[in-house]
Amino acid sequence: VPNYLKNKRTVLYTLDQNSKIPLHIQLYNELKNDIISEYKINDKLPSIRKIASTYNLSKTTVESAYSQLVAEGYIDSFPKSGYFVVDTLISNFPQQKNINQTQDIKKEYRFDLHPARLEKGLFPIKLWKRLFNKEIDENIDMGRYSDPQGEYDLRDEIAKYLQSSRAVKCEADQVVVCNGFADGMNLIARMFNSKKDPFTLEDPGYYIAYKVFDAYGYDIQKLPIDKNGIILKNLEKLDTKLLYITPSHQYPTGATIPIANRQKLLSWAKQSDTYIIEDDYDSELNYSNRPIPSLQGLDNDEKVIYVGTFAKSLSPALRVSYVVFPWHLIDTYKKQYDDIKVSLITQKTLKAFMKEGHWEKFLRKVRTINKKKHDLLKELLLTKLKDTVKIESIGAGLTIHINPNVPFDMEKFKQKAEQNSIKLYFAKTTSGGTWDAIRLGFGGFSLEDIVLFMDIFEVIWYESIIK
Amino acid sequence: VPNYLKNKRTVLYTLDQNSKIPLHIQLYNELKNDIISEYKINDKLPSIRKIASTYNLSKTTVESAYSQLVAEGYIDSFPKSGYFVVDTLISNFPQQKNINQTQDIKKEYRFDLHPARLEKGLFPIKLWKRLFNKEIDENIDMGRYSDPQGEYDLRDEIAKYLQSSRAVKCEADQVVVCNGFADGMNLIARMFNSKKDPFTLEDPGYYIAYKVFDAYGYDIQKLPIDKNGIILKNLEKLDTKLLYITPSHQYPTGATIPIANRQKLLSWAKQSDTYIIEDDYDSELNYSNRPIPSLQGLDNDEKVIYVGTFAKSLSPALRVSYVVFPWHLIDTYKKQYDDIKVSLITQKTLKAFMKEGHWEKFLRKVRTINKKKHDLLKELLLTKLKDTVKIESIGAGLTIHINPNVPFDMEKFKQKAEQNSIKLYFAKTTSGGTWDAIRLGFGGFSLEDIVLFMDIFEVIWYESIIK
Repeated sequence: VPNYLKNKRTVLYTLDQNSKIPLHIQLYNELKNDIISEYKINDKLPSIRKIASTYNLSKTTVESAYSQLVAEGYIDSFPKSGYFVVDTLISNFPQQKNINQTQDIKKEYRFDLHPARLEKGLFPIKLWKRLFNKEIDENIDMGRYSDPQGEYDLRDEIAKYLQSSRAVKCEADQVVVCNGFADGMNLIARMFNSKKDPFTLEDPGYYIAYKVFDAYGYDIQKLPIDKNGIILKNLEKLDTKLLYITPSHQYPTGATIPIANRQKLLSWAKQSDTYIIEDDYDSELNYSNRPIPSLQGLDNDEKVIYVGTFAKSLSPALRVSYVVFPWHLIDTYKKQYDDIKVSLITQKTLKAFMKEGHWEKFLRKVRTINKKKHDLLKELLLTKLKDTVKIESIGAGLTIHINPNVPFDMEKFKQKAEQNSIKLYFAKTTSGGTWDAIRLGFGGFSLEDIVLFMDIFEVIWYESIIK
Repeated sequence: VPNYLKNKRTVLYTLDQNSKIPLHIQLYNELKNDIISEYKINDKLPSIRKIASTYNLSKTTVESAYSQLVAEGYIDSFPKSGYFVVDTLISNFPQQKNINQTQDIKKEYRFDLHPARLEKGLFPIKLWKRLFNKEIDENIDMGRYSDPQGEYDLRDEIAKYLQSSRAVKCEADQVVVCNGFADGMNLIARMFNSKKDPFTLEDPGYYIAYKVFDAYGYDIQKLPIDKNGIILKNLEKLDTKLLYITPSHQYPTGATIPIANRQKLLSWAKQSDTYIIEDDYDSELNYSNRPIPSLQGLDNDEKVIYVGTFAKSLSPALRVSYVVFPWHLIDTYKKQYDDIKVSLITQKTLKAFMKEGHWEKFLRKVRTINKKKHDLLKELLLTKLKDTVKIESIGAGLTIHINPNVPFDMEKFKQKAEQNSIKLYFAKTTSGGTWDAIRLGFGGFSLEDIVLFMDIFEVIWYESIIK
C-alpha cells in the first residue's frame, strides 16, 4: 500500500434526496465518474466516515456505494489504510456507437409462392386460446426444467397419431419433441460419430439435411434418384452409416418409393447396418391417393429413424417437430446431453389439441382446403398454359412444380414476376442438385388469390416464351 | 407382361354400405389383405369393370382403390392387360411389437436442490395469459415462417433491456433469439470453423459449452481460474479463436472478473484477434451489490459475443435466450442457415411483457424474493453448521455452494440425503473440473421450505461428520 498517498481532494457530490434513485446508487455513480475522470492509479479515496459526515449520509449508504465499486474492481480496500483506486483502470467507459437501426425492410409481395406456407386464417386461433388458457391454469410448473425429451403426454399423442395415420410403429418413449426439422437433424448428427459414420442423402435432396451434417464435419455422399426415388442398384456399392431420404414425397421431385423398393431398401439397411433417416415432412397432404404408409412401419429391424413435423399442416411458426428413434437407440439418445426444445405451455396446448381430437379434424380440413387449391391451380395451369408447360410434380404437399415446355427466356420471366409483385422460388436453390423447377407454392393463397394470380401469371408466362 | 396369367379366383369382398369408412377405402383394404395373404407375384387382379359390376360399385370407386394400390406399389397396371401383383412383395406387414410403455418413473423429492429452479408460483400466469390472448388476436400470422433471427420488436425490447440493465451496447439487429443456452452456442459453433478455430473455456466451466463445441469437432483447451476468474498471465501463451467465460458470476465458483482484469482481457482479445463469448447467465441476480456491468459494454473492438437467457429469472420452461453479435459478425450470421427457434406467439407475448414494463417489475420482485431466500439460507447455514461448513460461493444467483470444513463421510451424507428425500447436486458434475462443492439451490424453495429443509439438513450434516 503506498502510504505516502493522501486524500486527493475534497469532492462535492450532488446528491438528490428526493430522487427515486437510492442515495447509495447516486453516490456510487458520482464516485465512479470521479474515478474515471479525475483520479489516478493508487489515489486514495475519502474515508467512509468523512463522506458520511460531510454529506449527512448514513455510514451504511456510503459503505454500500464503496462495496459496489470494490465489486466492480474500480477500487480496492486495504485494512487500516482505506480505499485506493486500483492499478489498472479504464480511462473511460466507451461511448455507445451511434449506429442507426437498420431493420431490414423486407419487400411484401402480392403473391408469395413460398413452397410451405399456410393460409393466414387457417390456424385455429380461438380453439388454441381456449386450450392454452385451460392448460396454463392446470397446475403447470414454469419454474423448472421439464423433460428434455418432451412432455410424456404430448409424446404419447404423437405416437398414437403416427401409429394410426402413418403406420409408424412407436411408443411415447421413442419420440423426442423438437422445435423444427433442423433441430431434430442436429440431434441425430450428435448421436453418431462424424469421424467414423458417413452420411448419405438423396440427390436432389433437402439442403438443410446437408447443411446440418456438414456443420458437424460428416463425410457426405449424394445418391441420385429416379421416378421411384433412390436408385436401388447404387446401394450395393454404397458404404454409409446414415441414409437420408424422403420416401413418401421426395423433396423436391415428388417421387414416391414403391412398396417393392421399400422392402429391398430395408433389407439392404439391415444387411449393411445402415440407418435410414425417413423424413416424412408432408406426406399427410396427399390429394390423389391416401397417404402412403411410412417406411418405418415396414421395418422389422429397427433401422429407420423417423422424422416428422407439424409445420406443413398446423403451423410453421409454432415450432414443433419430432424424431422417432428405434428402441435400441433410446439409450444412446439418453446418454447425450439434451435440453427442452419447446416451451412447456406450447407442448401442453398441442397435447390438448391432439387429445381432444382437434388435430384429426383439423388435418381433414387442411387436406380438403389444400386439395381444392391444388386442383384449381392444376386446372388453371393446364387450361391457360396448355402444352407450353410441363408439370414436374403434382398431387401432394403445398407446391406444384413446373417448367416451360417451350423455348423460354427465364431472365425475362424473373424480371416480370418481380415487376408484378410475384415472389418466385426455384427447386434447385434448396435441393443442391441439377434438378430444377419453378415452385408454385399455393398453401398461403386463398382460392380467389389463385385465380387472380393465374391471370397475371398467364400473361408474364406467354411474354417470356421465345417465339 | 406374362399373358398366360388369368384371373386367380373370384373374391368376395365384404363391403359395408353403412360404414363411415368410404367404400373405396374398404375395398382398398380388402384388396391389400388379399394381395398380402392370397396372391402371388404376377397374379392378375380382377378387372375394374368386373369388380364394379359384381359388387354394384361405381367404376370410380374401384379405380380409386386400384390407384392407391398402384401408388403404394402393391400392383402395377399394363395397358390392355390389366393389373398385376408386382414382382417383389412383402410377405406380410410386420406386426407391432408388444413393448410395454416404460415411462420413466422419476422419483419426486421433497427437497430438490436443483441449482437453477424457480418457485412454482412465481411465473406470472394471469398476466401471461392476458398478454398471450391479446397478442394472438392481433393479426398474428401462424401460417408463415417468421424471421429466423427472431421478431424485430422482441429483439428491440431485449436490446433496450440489455443496454439499460447490463450496459450492453447493442441494437435489435445484433440480437438473435434462441431457445436456450445450448441453442445459442450451437449457432456460434456453426459460424466458426471447427478445423481452424480453437475453442477455449474456463476450468471449471459450464459443461454444456464444452459439449456443444466438442460435438462440432473443435479443438478444446481449458484455462484455469482463480478468485478473479480467468488467470490473465495464461492468456499470453494461449492460441485460440474463441474464449468462453462467465465473467460476472463464474460458473460454478461464483468469481467475478474485476474491472482492471476486464480491460486487460479485452486488450488481449483485440491484440490476439480472439472472440470472447461472455455468458451472462444469471448476473441479474446479485444480492450483495448491484449487478456488475457486462464485459461487452467495455469492449470497443467488437470482440465480445454476448449470451444471455430468460431461464434464470422468468422461466426455464419458456425456452427463450439470446445471443448478441458484434456488428461485423451479423453478415456471417445471415449467411448461415438459420431457422426460427421460438414459437411466434411466445415471442410476441414476451415482447408485450417487456414493452409494458412488466419484465423490469418482475425482475425486481424476483431479486427481492430470491435475496430473502438466499439470506435466510445463509443465516441458517452459519448458525446451524457454524465452523463445520465452508461457504464456497454466495451472494448471487440461485445457489449457495458449500463444502464440509471438517472430516466428513460424503458417502454416508449422500445416503442420508436420499433417505430423507433430499436431491443433491454437486458442482463437479456440470463443470468438468476438480473444483467441487455441494450445490444448495434455493430457487425452487419457499422460505418455509428453507426452514424445514435446514432442520433436516442440519441433522444429516452432523451425522456425516467423522468424529
